[in-house]
Amino acid sequence: MEPGRTWFTNENCSVARTLEVIGERWTLLVLREAFLGVRRFEELHRNTGAARNILAARLRKLVERGILERRPYEEHPPRFEYRLTGRGLDLYPILVSLVRWGDKYVADPSGPPIVLEHKACGHDILPQLVCSECGGEIAARDVIAKPGPGALRKPA
Amino acid sequence: MEPGRTWFTNENCSVARTLEVIGERWTLLVLREAFLGVRRFEELHRNTGAARNILAARLRKLVERGILERRPYEEHPPRFEYRLTGRGLDLYPILVSLVRWGDKYVADPSGPPIVLEHKACGHDILPQLVCSECGGEIAARDVIAKPGPGALRKPA
Repeated sequence: MEPGRTWFTNENCSVARTLEVIGERWTLLVLREAFLGVRRFEELHRNTGAARNILAARLRKLVERGILERRPYEEHPPRFEYRLTGRGLDLYPILVSLVRWGDKYVADPSGPPIVLEHKACGHDILPQLVCSECGGEIAARDVIAKPGPGALRKPA
Repeated sequence: MEPGRTWFTNENCSVARTLEVIGERWTLLVLREAFLGVRRFEELHRNTGAARNILAARLRKLVERGILERRPYEEHPPRFEYRLTGRGLDLYPILVSLVRWGDKYVADPSGPPIVLEHKACGHDILPQLVCSECGGEIAARDVIAKPGPGALRKPA
């Protein structure tokens, strides 16, 4: 990395922008539940332990940002459930990566609380990060970060 | 997901535990810089925009938690740099997944600020999540979450 980098700052950084959307503890715990199939307020409340006002605020924001969709499931009285949108479903690799690191480094000695079964092959699996071109596994030192089309020419 | 789930709570959840280690905006921006090869306080300060006291506190915590290692690089005056440990390098899939989602949904119309080149194959790539057993791509609906060895028998 050259000193005096000018091609990106927090302003056009995709990490910083993604954190603005989901980078908050309760928000991520709500998303954990959503990926486990939990859709209703009461159950989200019980499973996350988020206070009701905090949970309501986080859900509102996730809907505003197009991550969750609020759908009626009962008319009398009106009740709603929260479902992941396509944009929300695409957050899955983030959640899975958080889980995998946590399972490796901060789980209890008894092991991870959850295991994942791949429907297609039927095995218990560990998701892996690979190269879209050659299929080789990707770790930190295997790639070079270069300025992309959205790089800034000048510091902000 | 059955209502009344008892096999995990926030207490043994790997997402919640990982968030306790890295789930904070400045911490993740410091890690972004570390993965880009930035090691020195002044440069971290400039690139993240974190206030010096906040940056110092975050670095201290990352060292305590075994994510970064503090190493002397100059003796007179004593100066230190911060390098990712093995445990820290293993956070890479989380960062890459944050970047990839951000590039897709919240980047500028001009495109992502960074592209990744895979050293081994020389191509610009998009990291993908695949199954460790069959190599098939993994998305949210391709897997089933099941209680693992660290599942709780009773609610906490």
